[in-house]
Order: sequence, then structure tokens, then C-alpha cells
Amino acid sequence: MTSFESDYNNGAHPEILRKFIETNAIQSASYGYDQWSESARDKIRKATQCPNAAIFFLAGGTQTNATVIDSLIASYEGTLAVETAHINVHESGAVEAFGHKVLTLPSHNGKMDANDLQTYLKAYHTNPTWEHMVYPGMVYLTFPTELGTVYQADEIDYIHTICQQYNIPLFIDGARLGYGLMSDECDFDLPWLAHHCDAFYIGGTKVGALCGEAVVFSQGNAPRQFFTIVKRHGALLAKSRVVGVQFDALFTGNLYFHIAQHAVEKALQLRQIFTDAGLTVRSSSTNQQFVELSNFQMEILMQHILFEIWEPIDETHTLCRFVTSWATTDYDMRELINAVKTIQLPKHKNF
Amino acid sequence: MTSFESDYNNGAHPEILRKFIETNAIQSASYGYDQWSESARDKIRKATQCPNAAIFFLAGGTQTNATVIDSLIASYEGTLAVETAHINVHESGAVEAFGHKVLTLPSHNGKMDANDLQTYLKAYHTNPTWEHMVYPGMVYLTFPTELGTVYQADEIDYIHTICQQYNIPLFIDGARLGYGLMSDECDFDLPWLAHHCDAFYIGGTKVGALCGEAVVFSQGNAPRQFFTIVKRHGALLAKSRVVGVQFDALFTGNLYFHIAQHAVEKALQLRQIFTDAGLTVRSSSTNQQFVELSNFQMEILMQHILFEIWEPIDETHTLCRFVTSWATTDYDMRELINAVKTIQLPKHKNF
Amino acid sequence: MTSFESDYNNGAHPEILRKFIETNAIQSASYGYDQWSESARDKIRKATQCPNAAIFFLAGGTQTNATVIDSLIASYEGTLAVETAHINVHESGAVEAFGHKVLTLPSHNGKMDANDLQTYLKAYHTNPTWEHMVYPGMVYLTFPTELGTVYQADEIDYIHTICQQYNIPLFIDGARLGYGLMSDECDFDLPWLAHHCDAFYIGGTKVGALCGEAVVFSQGNAPRQFFTIVKRHGALLAKSRVVGVQFDALFTGNLYFHIAQHAVEKALQLRQIFTDAGLTVRSSSTNQQFVELSNFQMEILMQHILFEIWEPIDETHTLCRFVTSWATTDYDMRELINAVKTIQLPKHKNF
Amino acid sequence: MTSFESDYNNGAHPEILRKFIETNAIQSASYGYDQWSESARDKIRKATQCPNAAIFFLAGGTQTNATVIDSLIASYEGTLAVETAHINVHESGAVEAFGHKVLTLPSHNGKMDANDLQTYLKAYHTNPTWEHMVYPGMVYLTFPTELGTVYQADEIDYIHTICQQYNIPLFIDGARLGYGLMSDECDFDLPWLAHHCDAFYIGGTKVGALCGEAVVFSQGNAPRQFFTIVKRHGALLAKSRVVGVQFDALFTGNLYFHIAQHAVEKALQLRQIFTDAGLTVRSSSTNQQFVELSNFQMEILMQHILFEIWEPIDETHTLCRFVTSWATTDYDMRELINAVKTIQLPKHKNF
Repeated sequence: MTSFESDYNNGAHPEILRKFIETNAIQSASYGYDQWSESARDKIRKATQCPNAAIFFLAGGTQTNATVIDSLIASYEGTLAVETAHINVHESGAVEAFGHKVLTLPSHNGKMDANDLQTYLKAYHTNPTWEHMVYPGMVYLTFPTELGTVYQADEIDYIHTICQQYNIPLFIDGARLGYGLMSDECDFDLPWLAHHCDAFYIGGTKVGALCGEAVVFSQGNAPRQFFTIVKRHGALLAKSRVVGVQFDALFTGNLYFHIAQHAVEKALQLRQIFTDAGLTVRSSSTNQQFVELSNFQMEILMQHILFEIWEPIDETHTLCRFVTSWATTDYDMRELINAVKTIQLPKHKNF
Repeated sequence: MTSFESDYNNGAHPEILRKFIETNAIQSASYGYDQWSESARDKIRKATQCPNAAIFFLAGGTQTNATVIDSLIASYEGTLAVETAHINVHESGAVEAFGHKVLTLPSHNGKMDANDLQTYLKAYHTNPTWEHMVYPGMVYLTFPTELGTVYQADEIDYIHTICQQYNIPLFIDGARLGYGLMSDECDFDLPWLAHHCDAFYIGGTKVGALCGEAVVFSQGNAPRQFFTIVKRHGALLAKSRVVGVQFDALFTGNLYFHIAQHAVEKALQLRQIFTDAGLTVRSSSTNQQFVELSNFQMEILMQHILFEIWEPIDETHTLCRFVTSWATTDYDMRELINAVKTIQLPKHKNF
Repeated sequence: MTSFESDYNNGAHPEILRKFIETNAIQSASYGYDQWSESARDKIRKATQCPNAAIFFLAGGTQTNATVIDSLIASYEGTLAVETAHINVHESGAVEAFGHKVLTLPSHNGKMDANDLQTYLKAYHTNPTWEHMVYPGMVYLTFPTELGTVYQADEIDYIHTICQQYNIPLFIDGARLGYGLMSDECDFDLPWLAHHCDAFYIGGTKVGALCGEAVVFSQGNAPRQFFTIVKRHGALLAKSRVVGVQFDALFTGNLYFHIAQHAVEKALQLRQIFTDAGLTVRSSSTNQQFVELSNFQMEILMQHILFEIWEPIDETHTLCRFVTSWATTDYDMRELINAVKTIQLPKHKNF
Repeated sequence: MTSFESDYNNGAHPEILRKFIETNAIQSASYGYDQWSESARDKIRKATQCPNAAIFFLAGGTQTNATVIDSLIASYEGTLAVETAHINVHESGAVEAFGHKVLTLPSHNGKMDANDLQTYLKAYHTNPTWEHMVYPGMVYLTFPTELGTVYQADEIDYIHTICQQYNIPLFIDGARLGYGLMSDECDFDLPWLAHHCDAFYIGGTKVGALCGEAVVFSQGNAPRQFFTIVKRHGALLAKSRVVGVQFDALFTGNLYFHIAQHAVEKALQLRQIFTDAGLTVRSSSTNQQFVELSNFQMEILMQHILFEIWEPIDETHTLCRFVTSWATTDYDMRELINAVKTIQLPKHKNF
């Protein structure tokens, strides 16, 4: 059955597999010192226009968030994030496992509002009991957000400026970075982003790789002994080629961006299919689309295609998530069109 | 240059790559629920003769040790291990990162002596200040050990019996499990091992895979919410197929054991080459061989082949490690023979 | 200057000092095994009508919360609490320091609503991604709350019932327990409370002692090796008599309740003084009163008496906290009356 | 029965009680800002000749060690200590609870040998796998040691110099500091010590107080936000006067040193009593004396006086600890003499 469940239920982009085959017989150094990791670093330095960037490859997103956050702040500090942030909801407390509180700000359609941030930091620093409260030591954003929305350049710029004013780092979780950058609504590019935060990661797992995330400290500002911190988090890969090879492939000939662009195009087609059928699709310009379905519609649709139940809207309606990837085909789109026909609203009937 | 540096500086066994290619286009569930992970679990249940085993796939060894240990004991408990144990020396404090002390016993050529364990536990439980000391909540062994040595069945059986007597679990780190089982000195098989401990893992990374370790709770005795614990440790893979496919291949047609046997055979040839040249090789019947070289010999040899400096023996001698793997060839052996000739002791000369 | 800043800016109740003098020359066991700790335990078992209660004495509130919470849940579990809870705001992340997330529910005038709790737990246990979320392993309440409000018996009973339904413990932070129990609005007594939760603590520091909190596991249900857990948290006192003697005095002749009743009476007088002067005092029936003052009034009042700035209400008004204790005297009340006169609203003037 | 069990089984020195009575009615600030804490800080700055010292008062020793160590090193760093160190054996893993490994060196009669330290640090920094090992981020010493022995000035100076060379702080646990300084074998004074380490604490609990330890950062070098770190460790006292008053008394008129001197004098008398009786007393010049007794002697002696069983020597002999304090009297000495007579060796008999 055609699946739009997630961007991690398919294999690797064929170019990645090809590269595995091509390199398999070659011996290499390990623990991040292999030649493909080095090559991938060079390519990412060019793609980000950060010639001095310090770059590390980890296996997955939760691991990367916990490791980088733990490396950026002192043990007694916390990180600011919106309530819907992945680290606050869906990472099983991996940040807290290392002793750090997640300090929450309201979510505005998945995004942090710079004014909320400014207010929080000002209040903290003038609060008479501040010494008894967790120090807000950094800011965590996701781009694109968990709801598929994208920040505008001026929004990130404002947040970054506030961080600099309070001398705390800004870290951007880019698990789906490519899809955000390829969104029509995105008004900046990768080099711009790399120069408007202290650290970020380029998600591989959800953008065509089998696994792997590339952490970038844009200005070469890796925390002291970051290698050891990675190891302490259980995040160091002995055969680091397993991620190095993949990122070397992803950053050859703009593959990373082509994969993302393809998925976004398919997502917009998918969106159109639903809106054409008279259904409400929440605002998202990336590869995740959130469709409001009656529970009856949902159950019928489930018999034809696979997708994810996101959350209940009310007693009789549910928000459902449809996700595209490098592997989404025209055939999948036709299957979707046929499936949606089964729930399409006739003019005179009331579902 | 021919390398004997490690068993993680080569690619994947070709059968694994083949399986990646074969399965790449197929969609699957994620987070461990994919079909290859399920298939690999079935095969491992058969290979271990543990029909009820609960099996989880993680990415690397340090991660696996930290996760399993943290899951087996309460936050205030520690784990017993020998001083030379990987968790005590080479994992950057990953066990302590989750609050657990590593309680050390003497190393006997890398192995724990059951009598030392018995004495420690008895002393702890009769110590008037025991309430002020870390509770020894489990035992951690490596098989084979960090020094390439292997336990005999009666040694593990005795340790296991003591653990049961004190009602604490026994966990065996099998990062190189295959090489231990294929050693001539090993007097038990995989099912026997699986039935003489509470949990263990089958190392993939160092035995032919690109990454991946299979944690086995032999009697289905996985700790409550182990999935969440894995996620909290940053060890959950979204595209779990990346490890599932590899273990499915490794446990098809005894590939795992063939890989291990090949490496052990090459290691014994390597051992013979050194002893034939009059050099001292420390006791090891697995794929790691530790050779005593004068620093002069070491420097000459380094110009011809790659290996690892293990530790200084004295001012003028060094212990060097030579490791074989699935990728070690007859050609590598001939290169080694030629290299060793350059340091071979003439009867009448004194190096 | 007369101070209503807090209930911890005065010395010990004289009866406690007397007991220190009386017992000082006597030698004793240590680490909680001294005779006064034993005697205090007996008296608390009687006062709570919990003959099997396991009772431990710790030094302060944050320490007690962090220790008990860490002892009640597994390392990967979190505790539910309202957003305004002391552990969530004013304990510098002491709960997170031991790896536990504080999962927040809305605050209703400082209190948790059982319906919110029910909804949260039901949602968690039916959420398709629950395995990726922190397990809600217990519930933390404060009685009275941080805002001086008190739960009714049926409210606690409902919360307790839900906890039992989900098989998770209920822990009540009683840093100011006495003041809650002596409130006119409280419709239960100490034994009732002790039988409607799994653990709670009787606050000493803020109710007449120099330091000390008594943790009560009502049904003898102390977590395994709680002594060691206390030590691991740095909360074990060598000369445990320092707290044992104080609780022995506090639970002799109902001293604990007399202290609390005195403070509550003075607080109600204080409340009357402010309302007589036409000022708004927020709902509280315990020893903390929260008065709304214009910033102008606040500054004048500060010249006459000491109190705490709680939080801004708007640009020109501030919420101020006034606290009474065993040491609050009639003289203090007269000083307050005089002070309030300086800001009293004349009928025809507009401040 | 006369007790030599410990220096924490008696009450407070009478001068401390007197000071509690004298100050009880006075209101004060809290959380360390009270007037007695301020006064005590001034007195300690004078006594240490460190006019810029930053001083904090905590409640107990384990708490102080865990808090200070956690504040001096990054989360991924460990502390060096000898195997017999209190933090390594008798603190229930309180250091590991905050993620730090205790890296052990051999104990030489309780002391660290500077050469061992030098060797360890040199080896770590030249080890090819150092990145995989815990960074030795500080050194922890006890003065006097757990075995009652004292370092000489040149020993501490050498260790301090090595720490400076490697740019890591030296922290000295002074739980029984007074007794060490008053030892005949000690060739330095408090100001010297304060100038030869980065942080240390002056033990109160075991030197006449009911509770309390004074942490001294000699050069005003308190770690950033140390107040918050103390709170996060549950170590902040609301009524900080409870410790402030005690240290104010202890550092008035040299009381701290008089208490220590008295105890050391009594310990030397005690030592003489045992050696006169032909018994072996291990080397200690402080208030703890370790006597070798046959198990038969031990059991007889136990019927007359109280002391602590330290550890078995062999099947038939036990090392026993006898401790003196401010409360040890001439009467206690006479009781000891009578008790020892019951086990004294007649010339012609063989026990």
C-alpha cells in the first residue's frame, strides 16, 4: 500500500548505496577520521561558506540534540525551546537525562516568537529569585518546525541577535533542514543560516540517508573535547564511514537539495489533491502536510493509503500527517488521488 | 599499506551490502518495527535457542553498554567490572554519565575471577558501612576480553551462579562475540552463553557489519519500557532497517560465524608468523594478537604495515596490537611475512 | 524594622532551643539512628495514625523533593506537577539534575485539577507515540500551594484515586504543611492526609525549626535502600540529632500545630488590616498573604516594614507577599497597622 | 558507656549553643545572606589570610564534596583521588550521581603520591586513545586522610604544582581539617594551606558543630553561579543562620583550633594507653587512632567501651578505630585505661 507515513520508512537514495558499493573495499581510519568523513566535511564547508566550520557526524536526531545541547551549556543550565519542540515532547527526556531542564516558551504554529524570548530573558535577569531558577543558557529552534512551518530570515535574525545580547548560543535542529530550505516560503539559503546561529545540524536520516546527522559549528567553535562528549553520549561510530560516505554522497552535485526539492514538490501536489477535494490542510510549505479529516473519512482513507494519526482535533475529527520523501513517485500521487476520491464530499451530502 | 590496525577500518561484508541493495526499494515500519529487524530477531532466537528472547538493535558498543547497564540497575546502583574493562577505561565515562559507578575488581589477563567477585559481594553485604557504599547491582563481563582472552564455560557458570545467589543480573559485552565463540579455546557455544547470563549483546560493528549491536534478553526479560530507555539514550534509530538488514544478513546461513572463523584463522596465522620470527606474542586465541616489540623493531615494522600501539612495556619495548577481520586476505599475510623479515633476529646479532 | 518577608528569617521556636540544651551532653548514634530521631518517629507515627510509617529526616525542602522524587520513580520517568510548582520554578533544576523531567499541568490558583491529570494520563496512555515520550511516573503536589491556597479533601482524594488507577505514587510537598492543616478552609487532618498519598513530608524549616523536613512513607513503603539514596543525594546528616531533636520537640505536646495555628491567626489579622484599608488581598487562608499594591504604595510601605516583592501585576502595580510565623507578635501587628495608615486611601483622593 | 566511636556522636560545643541562644530572637536575611554567615566569612578570611576568599556554608561533607567537585569540572570530566578516598568508597556514588567518574590512584597510607599523579597525567596526555578516556579535570585530596595521616607541606606543594602545570584545580576535603592542622606532624598552618590549593572546606560537623562545612575559594575564584549550583544540589539552607551562627562561634577566639587541639591531645593519650599495653597502633597523629586487636581482645573490650570496627586484618585480628572530640574527657581516659587492663597481655600468657 502506498505510504505517506514518514520520511524514514524508505531506504537510502540510490546514489548513497552506489557510494557504499564503490568504497566498500577501501580501508580507512575510524572514529570520524576516515577519508569520506573528511571529504564530506570539505564539501559541507563549501556549501555553508564556512571555511573554518568544525563538523561532526552522528547517527540520529535525538542523540544529536542531547549531545550538542549538553556540550553547549554548563551542567546547571537549561535550554529554551517552544512547548511543541521535539526535545520537549518526543525525545523521552534525553536532554533531562544529562541534567538539563527544557525551559518552554509558547509555540506559534511551531515557531518561537522573538518577543517571547526577549521577555523571558529580561524577566529572568531582573527576577529577585533568579538565583533559585534554572539559568537559560541557550536557545533551541527547529527548522523547519515539527509542524512543517518555516521561519523567515528576519525572525531568525532577531532571535539570534537576542542570543548574542545575552551571550547565549543559538542551536538549530535541522533534522529536516533540506525541506525547509527548499520551501517556497524560505527567504534564505544554507550559508545564511550557517552564519546566523552558533551551531546547527544537517539532517541526513530524514533526507535520503539511512542514518546520520552532520553537526556544524559554523565558526570552528566546537566545544572543548567535543569528541569525548560525543563518545560519552554513546554517539561515536567506530566505522564512521557509515555516515561519512553518506554525507559525501549527499553533498556531491547538490544531491541533498535535489532530494529535498523533489519531496517538497510532491508535498505541494499532495496538498493540492486534498484541497481540491474540499479538505482543510494546515499551513505548511515543506514535506509534511497536516490534513483535517473527520474520523469517518480517516477510517475510509486508511483502507487505501498509509499515513500517520497526528492528534485529535475534537470528538469527531482528527489531524492526520502525510509526508513525502526522495522515494515518493508519480505513481504514489495517482494512488492518493484515487484514495481521496473515496472520501470526496458530494455537493449534496453531509458526511 | 596492509593494515592490521583494527576490525573496524574496513567496509561491510559483501553479503550485507547485497542485502541493502536487495531491500532498498521496499518501504517498512521504523523504530525497530521493520520487517528485517523482525526477521533478524527470529533468526537470532533460533541461533541462541531462546524462543522467548527480547532482542533490540542499537548502533554501537559504548551506546549499548551504557543503555543496557542503565536499564538493568536502579539509579543508585553500580556495576562490577574488571579494571581493564572497556566501560572502565575507554568509554569516556558513558556509564557514569547516567549516574552509575563502575566498581572494579582485579583483571586476570582481562578476565574476572569468580573468587574475587564472591569475596567482594560477601564483604559488601557484611560491611558495617555498606549503606554508605554503592550497591553492586550487576556484573559486567566482556567476551572475549579486551586482551583477546576467552572465559571457559565453568568460569562463566561460576560467575553466573554467584550473581544468582546475590540476585543481580549478569551482562556480557559481546562486541567481538563471534571471535570468542570461534576460538579454539572456547568450550561452549552461543546457546550455552545465552542461557548463562541475563543479557548480552552480539557485536556487529566489529564482526562484518557497518554498524549495529544486537542486545539479547535471553528469557524475554527486557527491562520495563526498554524502548523508551533506548530513545532516552539517543540510541533509537528511525530507519531501524539500517541495522535490521545487516543482522538479517549476518544470521542467514551462519554468515556471522563464518566471518568470525575466517578472522580467527588469519589471526592464528599471524601469530605463527611472529612466533616463527622469534617474537613473543601474548596469549590470545581470538582475532586480536598482542606482540612484544622493541621500539626499534616497532618503528621499522611501521614502515611496512599498519598496526596499533597498545601500551609501553618498558623504556625500550612496546606492546603492539594486530587485528584481523572478514577482510583480511592471504595477500595481507604475505605482506606481513615480508614485513616481519625486516625485523627478524639474525642468530648472531643483537637488536 | 518589623519583617513579614518570610517564615525562614527568624530563629527556632524556643522549645526547640530548650531541647538542644537539654540533650547536648548526651552521646548518641548517628546517621539517623540517634534516640531523638527514633523518638520523633514514634511521635509522628502516632500523630499520623500510621503505625508502620517509615520516616526519614532531611535538612531542607529542595533536597527532600529531589531525593524523594528520585527514589519513587525509575531513572527514565518524570513527575507531573503544576506549572507554578516549586520544583518546576524555584529549585534550580534539582529534579532534572537526577535525570527526571517535570511534566507540567496548568495551575489553578496554585492547585492541580484532577480532571487535567486524568486527561493527561489518558492521552499519554493512548498516544501512538507514547514510547517516545517521558513516562508520567508520579504526581507531585504542594500543600498548601506556593500561592497559599489549600486543597479540599475531595480534590486530593480524586487525585489520589487517579494515581491508584494508573498505579503511580502521589507525593505531597508539605514544606508549610502545618499552615495548610491549620487553615480554616482545610477540611481534613494530618492522619487523613497521611492515608491519602504514598509519601509526603512535614516541613520543619518554615514551621519553627532551624532546619529539617520529615519524610513520611505512610504505609512503611520506603523505596528499597532509601538510606543510600539519601546519602547519594548528599542529604544524610552525620549528627542526625540536629534534626531529630527538633522534630522530637515539634511533636511534643502539639507544638507543631500550635506554631502553625499562631501564624495563621496572625496572617488573618494581617489580611484584615489590608482589606480594612481598602486593599485587595488575593485568596489565601494560610500564613502567606498576597496583597496588590500600586508601585507608589509599595515604595512607601517599604520604608516602614519589610515584605517580599512577588511579581509585577501590570506597569503600575505589584503583587507583594507578607508572611507570618511562630515569631510574629502583636507588636508586629501594631507596626503593620501604623505602616498601612501611611498608604491608606483617603475617600476623596486618587493615588 | 564511654564512647570513642566517632567525632559525630556528641552534641555541639557549648559555645555554639550559647551563640544560638544569644541570636535566636534576631531576624535576618536567609539563603546565606544572614549577618552571622557574613561575620563568619570575615573571620575565616582573616584566619586564612585570604582577604578575597569566596566562602559558602553547606550542611555536610558528602554534599560539599559532590557540590564543589561538580562545580569545578565540566560534565564530562572526572576527578583524581586515591582508592581509599571518602568520595570513592563511602559517599554512595554522590560524585557519579552528577556524571563524574572518580579516577583512582594508589593510596599510600591514605595519601596520594605526587609521582603517581605526575605519571597518570603524563600517561593520559600522551595516550593515543586519550580522547576515549575520561579527562582528569581536577585532583581531590583529604586532609587529614581517612586513615588519620597528614600530608607534609612539600607533598601538597608538589601536588599543587603538578595541578598548575596541567591547569587543573586542586580541592582539599577538610572534613577533619582542624585535627590535621593541630597534629604535631603538620608543618604548615591554615593560611599556607589556603594558598596551596584552589578550593577546600573547613569541616564543622566533625569539629564541634552540629552540622556545617565552610567551602573556601581562596582567591575569590568561586565557579560562575555557584549559588545556583548549591541549590541544584539541594544544599542551600533557607535559614542559613543554622550554619552561619556555628561558624561565627567556631572562628571567634580560635575556638575551632582549641577544639581540634583538645581532641588531638586526648587521641595521643589514648594512643599511649594502647601502646603501653603492648598493642600495635597504626601511624596517626590526629584524632583518629587505629588499633590492631585480636578478635578475642576486641570482644572483651567491647563490653567496656564503644569504638568502631574498621576492617578485618586477618582471620583472627581486626583493625579498630578510636576517635576523640571536643567532648572527650579525662574521665573517658580513665575508663579507657580500666578497659584496656582487661585485655592487657600478661608476660607469660599467649592470648
